[in-house]
Amino acid sequence: MRNTSILFCILLVLISCKINNSNEILVTNNESLQKALKNTVAGDIIVLKNGVWTDVEIKFTGEGTKENPISLKAETAGKVFIEGVSSLEMSGNYLNVSGLFFRNGHSPKKNVIAFRTSEKQVANHSKVTNCVILDFNNLERDQDNLWVQLYGKHNEFSNCYLAGKTNGGPTLRVDLKGNQSIRNYHKIINNHFGPRPRKGGARGETIQLGSSFTSMSPSNTLIANNLFEECNGEVEIISSKTNFNIIKNNVFYKSEGSVVTRHGNYVSIDGNYFIGDGKNENYGGIRIINTGHWVTNNLFYKIKGKNFRSPIAIMNGIPKSPLNRYNQVTDVVVAYNTFVDSDSPFQFGVGQNLAQKDVLPKSEIRSARALRTEVVNNVIYNSKGDENPIIEHDKADGVTFNSNIIDNNGVDFKEKDWLISKDLTLTDICSDISVPVSGFSDVAPYNGFDFENITEDLLGNSRGKSNQIGALATSQNIKLNVLDKSKYGADWYSNVFEAKEPKTISVGINDNLQAKIDEAENGDIIDLGFGLFEINKPLVIKKSITITSSGDGKAHIIYNGEKETPLFSLQPYGKLKIEKVILKGNNTNYLFATLKKNMSNHFGLKVNYCEISNFNYVLRVYKQAFSEEIIFKGSSITNCENGLELSEETNDRGDYNTEYLTIDGCIFTNVKQNVIDYYRGGYDESTIGGNLLVTNSTFTNSGASEKNKRLFNHNGIHNVNINNNIFKNNKVKFVSILWGAKNNIESNNTLINSGILKTEENLKQTLMY
Amino acid sequence: MRNTSILFCILLVLISCKINNSNEILVTNNESLQKALKNTVAGDIIVLKNGVWTDVEIKFTGEGTKENPISLKAETAGKVFIEGVSSLEMSGNYLNVSGLFFRNGHSPKKNVIAFRTSEKQVANHSKVTNCVILDFNNLERDQDNLWVQLYGKHNEFSNCYLAGKTNGGPTLRVDLKGNQSIRNYHKIINNHFGPRPRKGGARGETIQLGSSFTSMSPSNTLIANNLFEECNGEVEIISSKTNFNIIKNNVFYKSEGSVVTRHGNYVSIDGNYFIGDGKNENYGGIRIINTGHWVTNNLFYKIKGKNFRSPIAIMNGIPKSPLNRYNQVTDVVVAYNTFVDSDSPFQFGVGQNLAQKDVLPKSEIRSARALRTEVVNNVIYNSKGDENPIIEHDKADGVTFNSNIIDNNGVDFKEKDWLISKDLTLTDICSDISVPVSGFSDVAPYNGFDFENITEDLLGNSRGKSNQIGALATSQNIKLNVLDKSKYGADWYSNVFEAKEPKTISVGINDNLQAKIDEAENGDIIDLGFGLFEINKPLVIKKSITITSSGDGKAHIIYNGEKETPLFSLQPYGKLKIEKVILKGNNTNYLFATLKKNMSNHFGLKVNYCEISNFNYVLRVYKQAFSEEIIFKGSSITNCENGLELSEETNDRGDYNTEYLTIDGCIFTNVKQNVIDYYRGGYDESTIGGNLLVTNSTFTNSGASEKNKRLFNHNGIHNVNINNNIFKNNKVKFVSILWGAKNNIESNNTLINSGILKTEENLKQTLMY
Repeated sequence: MRNTSILFCILLVLISCKINNSNEILVTNNESLQKALKNTVAGDIIVLKNGVWTDVEIKFTGEGTKENPISLKAETAGKVFIEGVSSLEMSGNYLNVSGLFFRNGHSPKKNVIAFRTSEKQVANHSKVTNCVILDFNNLERDQDNLWVQLYGKHNEFSNCYLAGKTNGGPTLRVDLKGNQSIRNYHKIINNHFGPRPRKGGARGETIQLGSSFTSMSPSNTLIANNLFEECNGEVEIISSKTNFNIIKNNVFYKSEGSVVTRHGNYVSIDGNYFIGDGKNENYGGIRIINTGHWVTNNLFYKIKGKNFRSPIAIMNGIPKSPLNRYNQVTDVVVAYNTFVDSDSPFQFGVGQNLAQKDVLPKSEIRSARALRTEVVNNVIYNSKGDENPIIEHDKADGVTFNSNIIDNNGVDFKEKDWLISKDLTLTDICSDISVPVSGFSDVAPYNGFDFENITEDLLGNSRGKSNQIGALATSQNIKLNVLDKSKYGADWYSNVFEAKEPKTISVGINDNLQAKIDEAENGDIIDLGFGLFEINKPLVIKKSITITSSGDGKAHIIYNGEKETPLFSLQPYGKLKIEKVILKGNNTNYLFATLKKNMSNHFGLKVNYCEISNFNYVLRVYKQAFSEEIIFKGSSITNCENGLELSEETNDRGDYNTEYLTIDGCIFTNVKQNVIDYYRGGYDESTIGGNLLVTNSTFTNSGASEKNKRLFNHNGIHNVNINNNIFKNNKVKFVSILWGAKNNIESNNTLINSGILKTEENLKQTLMY
Repeated sequence: MRNTSILFCILLVLISCKINNSNEILVTNNESLQKALKNTVAGDIIVLKNGVWTDVEIKFTGEGTKENPISLKAETAGKVFIEGVSSLEMSGNYLNVSGLFFRNGHSPKKNVIAFRTSEKQVANHSKVTNCVILDFNNLERDQDNLWVQLYGKHNEFSNCYLAGKTNGGPTLRVDLKGNQSIRNYHKIINNHFGPRPRKGGARGETIQLGSSFTSMSPSNTLIANNLFEECNGEVEIISSKTNFNIIKNNVFYKSEGSVVTRHGNYVSIDGNYFIGDGKNENYGGIRIINTGHWVTNNLFYKIKGKNFRSPIAIMNGIPKSPLNRYNQVTDVVVAYNTFVDSDSPFQFGVGQNLAQKDVLPKSEIRSARALRTEVVNNVIYNSKGDENPIIEHDKADGVTFNSNIIDNNGVDFKEKDWLISKDLTLTDICSDISVPVSGFSDVAPYNGFDFENITEDLLGNSRGKSNQIGALATSQNIKLNVLDKSKYGADWYSNVFEAKEPKTISVGINDNLQAKIDEAENGDIIDLGFGLFEINKPLVIKKSITITSSGDGKAHIIYNGEKETPLFSLQPYGKLKIEKVILKGNNTNYLFATLKKNMSNHFGLKVNYCEISNFNYVLRVYKQAFSEEIIFKGSSITNCENGLELSEETNDRGDYNTEYLTIDGCIFTNVKQNVIDYYRGGYDESTIGGNLLVTNSTFTNSGASEKNKRLFNHNGIHNVNINNNIFKNNKVKFVSILWGAKNNIESNNTLINSGILKTEENLKQTLMY
């Protein structure tokens, strides 16, 4: 026995050696890092010393093994800061990266992290985990890139936090070009996709799986257990463009978009949470295009998105669609989902545009309705009844409905054959989330083809024995914590910050206003008292601040700065709220303007109760600058050459300069041109924006120099609402020409000697694709 | 022990019972058959009594099990004849059909054998084996149907013989509409697909896997070990339109078409034999469209197909192609194939049609070249050197070439970087087949991504140890018998018949000519001596016969039949060869005409050394009638109102009335209109036909009544050759207008007072799709 024991010990040691064939290499600067990267061997662990690493291009290659991967990690996770012009590329096998924090910089390449080092050299069986990428944006919005791009096979991107991408391009893309990257079985799991601001136009997806050019390829990517929080980049949060992907158990929380099966087929969207607030109509659900998708076990909670953004949007296809457009929906299953207080959850024929057949080419007309599609075993609960739980933009005649129930709280609806009425009660299953979990056991689930493969419910409970319709197969003791952010992302990073009490900084008339602004922190208030300030050069705004008067009167700023310079230079991160200030220019300079270049992050502007006069431009937004909101409220604008100019996005790729432009209770007098000039070029039916609201305002003697004789120009803007305004003595032909087919409306306006307000159903647009 | 034995025996009996739970039910007529079909249980064997079963519609349903399938079989395989208006449909699980012979009839449905009984009720794990379908054609060519249509999953179609389909529609189709029919793993194995005559236009495939509408669906169908013999229906023998199919170890023998990856992706075409005769330019190879196909281990032997039909035709795609057109080729591998005496085996940019950009819409222009494609490890041997082993219809700049060799027997060629020259020798590996099997061991095989999955060669030998380029990994003792027909199809049927010596039947002037024709058998000769025959009603031709004169003079037939009736009524199977006969009409009746309806099989016509005069029509071919060949040789046609009329296929679906129309050494005098009128409507770039040859002939005083002032009308015919003719005093504007972009040519013609012969590069055509 003794000999055997010794042998066993030797064996154990040998095995340990094999397993622990590790070699830790601490690197302290770029030079030692590059050296360490040169000749990696299986088991190597390259450790980056804590601190700031500036301008590092990491090319991490090597042949690790399952037992002995090669690692690149932070000395302490979260304490290694990759800044400046930096990137990470990797190729080989079994490579692990962890603990890095990308911030204060941008990538010199087409991606920040790439799972390849050249077209043919890709990474396989490799992992990036426990990292953060924050605001690592290119300098210009139009400089598209990706933060993470997966190639190769069997890679993992996990437990990372990514937030703040403002430039074009999806945050993360799986690329399938080349046989080396198909059937990839990548895992994108346990991440926290934090806020991605509205981008203003297309190319703002959070995740994109392939592209239309690889939409025929098998991908088999898994996206599971991620939190998507305020992913507002564009209408698609996840754009699945390949086949056989699995999107499972993710939480979509207050995210202005949908999960879209844009191209590709046979995607499983199972057990996800779509959580809205019951108000915001931009929070969407699942939009279906193409063949063979299974949408099962999902919970939709207070989702108010409409049409393209409705909880379940089944699109019409284009007959014999071009590769990059819309294939018909066929063989889709929508089963065992639960909808609580979500408006019109089932919408069919979404995108039907037969009315536009005269202005669009035939290859753009979506007339092919869904075929062989099953909508079954779903539960709808509406605390406040919904008159249209089902909307047919086109006939749902290719859809089988069965065993769907609704508690509509007494409100009548049309589709009695498709929805069975029931009285249900709600059960709390999570903080702030209550759903019906019982009361429908008498409705036998419809058993479609292959339904035996729906083995579990939303929570992973077996559907085997006591199956029931809806997302939850059981009503027993459900206590969820899906919104516990500590479950997602890097373990060392949290995006929850303690609310800071704003500080008020008083500025006397002899103070240097710029110095005071610089002294302020995000959220602070600059109090001008009611003094008079003469300013000679632009005030730089690079943070969120409020500038206000205090007391009874209004402060007064006279700007004597040079021609074509702004009083307020709105720079990246510069979000200015200015209230109750009298602002006066010298007729050649500007009030507000962005930078002409390098607006690498969004700006913002709210102007409340100000008196503005004698500027060349009130607001001038240059190309590639973007604000989520611009609001003028209760303010007067008098004797200015130009008003609000947001019309430089002329490359017709669907971009625009602000998501929301609001004029409320303002008085425009003698503003000669560009009174409101807000442009979006390039027709794209699926992205939706911007938004112009002009209400309770008065426009007098304005627009006289406008060449096209329109007071307002808002070409291509999707949502326009002009109501309760007075237009008097404006020398124009049109106050506005509204786009009827989009959401352009006007009401209750008074026009006196000011041309007309005209609506055209279809405007000719440049196609984007 | 004794008790155990008893127990064991009981167990054995129980198991036997389970396995042999069979119940044979002999049915003798339709009534008892229908009764037996009504309540099948696992283990039932329904036996059809030997004999002819007329007008039976079999709906075979039931739930068999793996151990106890339900069977429907012939009492003796091959002795149960299904005739008349009959069909077979099946649905359920584990159903087996065997031994049936479908002949002398057609189906009342859209298919003869269907693996479903309704849209949702399909067959799974079921099999049709050892059956024959022969000439079971619909009455009209335009009545498209399928002989075999597979639905459901895991079905097998094996050891069957199918031949003689003349009407539209593929012989066999796998259908994928509906989730119940995807990932089907059907096996189409060991069949003999016998001669399928040219159909004349599209829709004549032998096998079609899905359609463009299901081209996104995974099919996983296996087509293996089949013999395709003279499958000449159209340019596609196998049209793969779905994903992940496997086409393996089949023999394509003298078949006028190609294996085409028409839609869908990731098809494996491995270890097949393409065997031609070194002459016929219609025998093709593999035509590649779309993504991810692997073409490996195939042998091409004496394949002379060009362009679309070349051994390896890599097509150009249409950028962002519509669903039913041409996607770009990407990520395709062509490796380890051997080409012997096959012309220009590698062709790239096939279908490139930039020159037609003015006559075709943009969505028809194939300008997208292959990307990320590898052509490697292939061997070419040419006994007679080939100046263009590689043809670039468009640049092959997205293609990687590596480790390809050629023995071009000293003939120079251009692509030295892509093909390495070697001296090789041939080895006999099969009767009449010799290939190079060695002499290239010094060329290391290129090792591309995933090439480790090419584990075997053409013969199933391992490539592991002694790998080499080309289809054969070994040179040891190769003795093949791939052309032994007994290996394929039903074990009770052979299409090899002993050659019959033709019988000559002499006809005296007092004999009833029709009676003598009826007496003749296929191939026999009717000898008219040199008598004079007056005929008053049409002679019916329903078989292959020759009518001839004998001795020195020519026999003489005067036709006094009614107006618009033909002397010879060419009916299904009626193939007439008439030689050395003087044929005279009454100016109102016809010489040759098909039936106006129900031409359920092809006719044929050869007219040699005849003197024809005074007919209203010399030949009138009605819509839906088709002949593979029509030849007029050394004959005169004088004083006829109409000549050869083959222009009723006006529905513009690409159909036409004869594959080959040949006029050789004839004299046309005073033929007023439709001198030659041969029409094909509907532009389709991939199907190729018909063929008009007019040579060594003289046309005088003809075409005077032709409204469009053309002597010949051959609109849409792809191959036209007009040479060495004399045209004299024909009152026309054009002898012909040739289509330059297609293969329309003329040479060495003499025109005297006969208008002109004009060539137009691009003719405006109606698109078919």
